[in-house]
Amino acid sequence: MMRFYGFFRSSSSYRCRIAFNLKGIQPDFVPVNLRAGEQRDPAFLAMNPQGLLPALDTGRGVLTQSLAIIEWLDETRPAPPLLPADPVQRAAVRAFAQIIACEIHPLQNLRVLNFIKQNYGLDQDGADAWARHWIAEGLTACEAIAARRSHGGAFTFGDTPGLADICLIPQLFSADRFGLDSASWPRLREIRAACDALPAFADAHPARQPDAQ
Amino acid sequence: MMRFYGFFRSSSSYRCRIAFNLKGIQPDFVPVNLRAGEQRDPAFLAMNPQGLLPALDTGRGVLTQSLAIIEWLDETRPAPPLLPADPVQRAAVRAFAQIIACEIHPLQNLRVLNFIKQNYGLDQDGADAWARHWIAEGLTACEAIAARRSHGGAFTFGDTPGLADICLIPQLFSADRFGLDSASWPRLREIRAACDALPAFADAHPARQPDAQ
Repeated sequence: MMRFYGFFRSSSSYRCRIAFNLKGIQPDFVPVNLRAGEQRDPAFLAMNPQGLLPALDTGRGVLTQSLAIIEWLDETRPAPPLLPADPVQRAAVRAFAQIIACEIHPLQNLRVLNFIKQNYGLDQDGADAWARHWIAEGLTACEAIAARRSHGGAFTFGDTPGLADICLIPQLFSADRFGLDSASWPRLREIRAACDALPAFADAHPARQPDAQ
Repeated sequence: MMRFYGFFRSSSSYRCRIAFNLKGIQPDFVPVNLRAGEQRDPAFLAMNPQGLLPALDTGRGVLTQSLAIIEWLDETRPAPPLLPADPVQRAAVRAFAQIIACEIHPLQNLRVLNFIKQNYGLDQDGADAWARHWIAEGLTACEAIAARRSHGGAFTFGDTPGLADICLIPQLFSADRFGLDSASWPRLREIRAACDALPAFADAHPARQPDAQ
């Protein structure tokens, strides 16, 4: 029995939900309300001492960090693959995912926005402007890569969705939330339309989760 | 012929250097001075349009993002392995690496420090305090994990160095640069001593690179 601890609006939880859906598996879902600080509850910390979301209790150990969880999933349930077979192509897909996971998302998450508000005297508009700056910079890099890679495939790297799309779609959702206009990223919009048409992506949307507020 | 584009003091270049050394390979090194903005030179952009460091020209494609480069290396040159064989253990090592690569490093890199100085009126001391805050928070999480994992092995996850150590050592170097005292992280200090004793780590140190200033 697998148990997935997540939060409807967390980008990294959203990534994992898409991956589970693409693999056709449904772990039990345990909502942890990040805004209410439930990740610091003793019961959650007993299971996951770091107090991080998302977390996956596999029954054989608790996994954290969305990309590590998704790579584990791909290694233990290889079909359909979320990474291409060729090592150079795998590296390209991972690099795209890491632009989002290492260069965009960490700068716009809740703890960082709270920190700049508390320490640098920014109001919510100022914090949103910070988030928009880093999201726009990173998505512009993603657009350039995706536009160069578009060889007729509907997704970021070809005809089937994979790790790059799994990271991209939640980041575009977050861009919307911060009021960015995605018109600057036409190739990313096309990819999004292709993903939105798949139940694996549509069902993972934050608004469709049982803990959505 | 492989060509590695890096900068002596960049943490992510440092990670790749350790990985190359552990695998016993020596790509041609091309220094790109980040402080002088050489990553925006037309000659560099022609090879790597994103203008990112590190980059590895494999002869079959240019790879970016240090973790993607290191996973590629591990997939194409399996000995010695940089990740354990067991999927749950692999996920634990990747999660540790991602705490550093996704939660610490992105917040303390040069472009972010420049941004907060330019936009929030911080001086160098203020920017350094920001960096120290995020490094200390992340390394404290790493210490807790590493302390729980220490079963007598000298390294973060056992008897041989791997991806976790490859990310940890450059981050500890960066912690030093920002003036943090590593006394709060005794297990990380032990791991560092074990790594420092290996030529693969010692030779990758920024001070030993041809472009060191």
